[in-house]
Amino acid sequence: MSTLRRVRGRFCTFVAIALLCGGLLHTVRASAQAPSLPSWNDGPAKQAINAFVKEVTDESSLKYVDPEDRIATFDQDGTLWVEHPLYTQAVFALDRVHELALQHPEWNHQEPFKAVLANDASAMAWFSESDWETIVAATHAGMSTDAFREIAKQWLARANHPRFHRPYTDLVYQPMLEVLEFLRANKFKTYIVTGGGQEFVRVYSERVYGIPPEHVVGSSILTKYEYQEGKPVLMREPKVFFIDDFTGKAIGINLFIGKRPCAAFGNSRGDQQMLEWTQGAGGAKLMMLVLHDDPEREYAYGPADGLPDTKVGTFPDSLMAEANGRGWVVISMKKDWKRIFGF
Amino acid sequence: MSTLRRVRGRFCTFVAIALLCGGLLHTVRASAQAPSLPSWNDGPAKQAINAFVKEVTDESSLKYVDPEDRIATFDQDGTLWVEHPLYTQAVFALDRVHELALQHPEWNHQEPFKAVLANDASAMAWFSESDWETIVAATHAGMSTDAFREIAKQWLARANHPRFHRPYTDLVYQPMLEVLEFLRANKFKTYIVTGGGQEFVRVYSERVYGIPPEHVVGSSILTKYEYQEGKPVLMREPKVFFIDDFTGKAIGINLFIGKRPCAAFGNSRGDQQMLEWTQGAGGAKLMMLVLHDDPEREYAYGPADGLPDTKVGTFPDSLMAEANGRGWVVISMKKDWKRIFGF
Repeated sequence: MSTLRRVRGRFCTFVAIALLCGGLLHTVRASAQAPSLPSWNDGPAKQAINAFVKEVTDESSLKYVDPEDRIATFDQDGTLWVEHPLYTQAVFALDRVHELALQHPEWNHQEPFKAVLANDASAMAWFSESDWETIVAATHAGMSTDAFREIAKQWLARANHPRFHRPYTDLVYQPMLEVLEFLRANKFKTYIVTGGGQEFVRVYSERVYGIPPEHVVGSSILTKYEYQEGKPVLMREPKVFFIDDFTGKAIGINLFIGKRPCAAFGNSRGDQQMLEWTQGAGGAKLMMLVLHDDPEREYAYGPADGLPDTKVGTFPDSLMAEANGRGWVVISMKKDWKRIFGF
Repeated sequence: MSTLRRVRGRFCTFVAIALLCGGLLHTVRASAQAPSLPSWNDGPAKQAINAFVKEVTDESSLKYVDPEDRIATFDQDGTLWVEHPLYTQAVFALDRVHELALQHPEWNHQEPFKAVLANDASAMAWFSESDWETIVAATHAGMSTDAFREIAKQWLARANHPRFHRPYTDLVYQPMLEVLEFLRANKFKTYIVTGGGQEFVRVYSERVYGIPPEHVVGSSILTKYEYQEGKPVLMREPKVFFIDDFTGKAIGINLFIGKRPCAAFGNSRGDQQMLEWTQGAGGAKLMMLVLHDDPEREYAYGPADGLPDTKVGTFPDSLMAEANGRGWVVISMKKDWKRIFGF
């Protein structure tokens, strides 16, 4: 911490002098800026981040990138916050099923709701994509966008993680928050590109990650423009509009941002195409994958690297092979991170 | 011009002093900033813009808006640039039909292509939405996103407007460029929200309007992730994905930006819901519609206000009635604008 403070102090003096000198400002800005990455151990991952930022911000470098093209994209679940034992938004959906069941007595005899209401974990583990779509349609649609945001906000304020006994929004990875800040300090625009619901993540993205709603790209359902008491509302319809996962992440980046990222961070097979798409154009590029290999402080799952297999945030051997083949950097939570959480 | 220069000079001195004073900076920033609106005549439209900006940037005002929530959305065709006698992108599509006809001899006997190839203006005037979809599918799909951008760029570099004999990207309204700049100088994020093609507009939005690709919301077709020679490409498919017009403009704003605008600018019935959606939430709001009532310097069409009727950029009486009823400000090109173009 004292190092960080010292660096920050120097930086402030630096800026003050630069502003007074006027003409020098441009050159001064060219080098990578604090804050550094205090929660990262020295090692190949930290070095890769520092080297990349140095390269794209150094005007004398062949790989210099103009500030307006400094785009970095981050998967959320398992990359920025905890996704085990279950994606946070899936927990939200299951909680909503319990809450709404009073108005739906038929759910007691109707799958997939029956399994949810019976807390039948083994049945839920085998839910198909269509089961989840049914649950999302029943729990995420039928209200206005404003009403949905309020529902999500209230749930996030009261729900706790079963192992860490803290609000889900506390369970963000401190080292990744530092990467977000470090990139933004170097004039990057940081985006979330998540398979999760865009409207759900936008509720807390600014507060938790410093990422404004307009920088959240995610999955969405259809909305319909209607008038209620003379005022326009957007009603959420029980129909999928866009799935921002796998190839959808590259498609979503092109659709919502319209520029190729310089850097992309993920942790599972759903992030493969986002990293490929990032690397696919020329210039300085940084592709990173978080490997959950720390069962003591967080979780351990792969099945890459012989870690336990999982259906939530799968990191298969094929992804590890691609990472190695293409020069993507794998972040070991155990080795690369001094601490996992900010608390 | 000399006034503008004087104002700018004062502004620079102002900023320099403010930076040296440090602590004063915050207060100083609170008031509306230059540049002003030199191509606007004094009148209710110019006053409305100035009053709105003053209100949202004055920290002592009840209607003060935090910089991160200062969002302004602009329709493009007929609001930022000329749309008569035909939308620029429609001209592009028709030109592409002529270019591609050599590879499609069957088009000579097949509508809607036959009418295009015969330059049958009266038949084209009656093209249905489905005719246009067929033309867009044939001319805007079947290539990668990168290839499409290059095609659009090259066309824009060589095509000229039939009346003004200049590149289409010259035909932007100088007074509106000044509004964009004025808002950005006051920390607004300016977005284009167009019924036109998102990918098409992104080709020139930064250069022409100072609006980066990520701030362009528009209509789009499906894209598909594929590999070509080991590299990922996004192939444009001949299928509509999203129509950003009418209710689609409100839906698009929520989808792509996730925040309600404080200000919205349009000129036709396709902008109705964007203005309603903007006004629908509390706070300081500015809704404006450009009325094309200047046949000498540009065009005259409505049919509102007894102007000639048109199928391109229709401003119906019902929209004028809604504007009057809801306090939207109508900009008269003839009365409010000192000059139309920058050339």
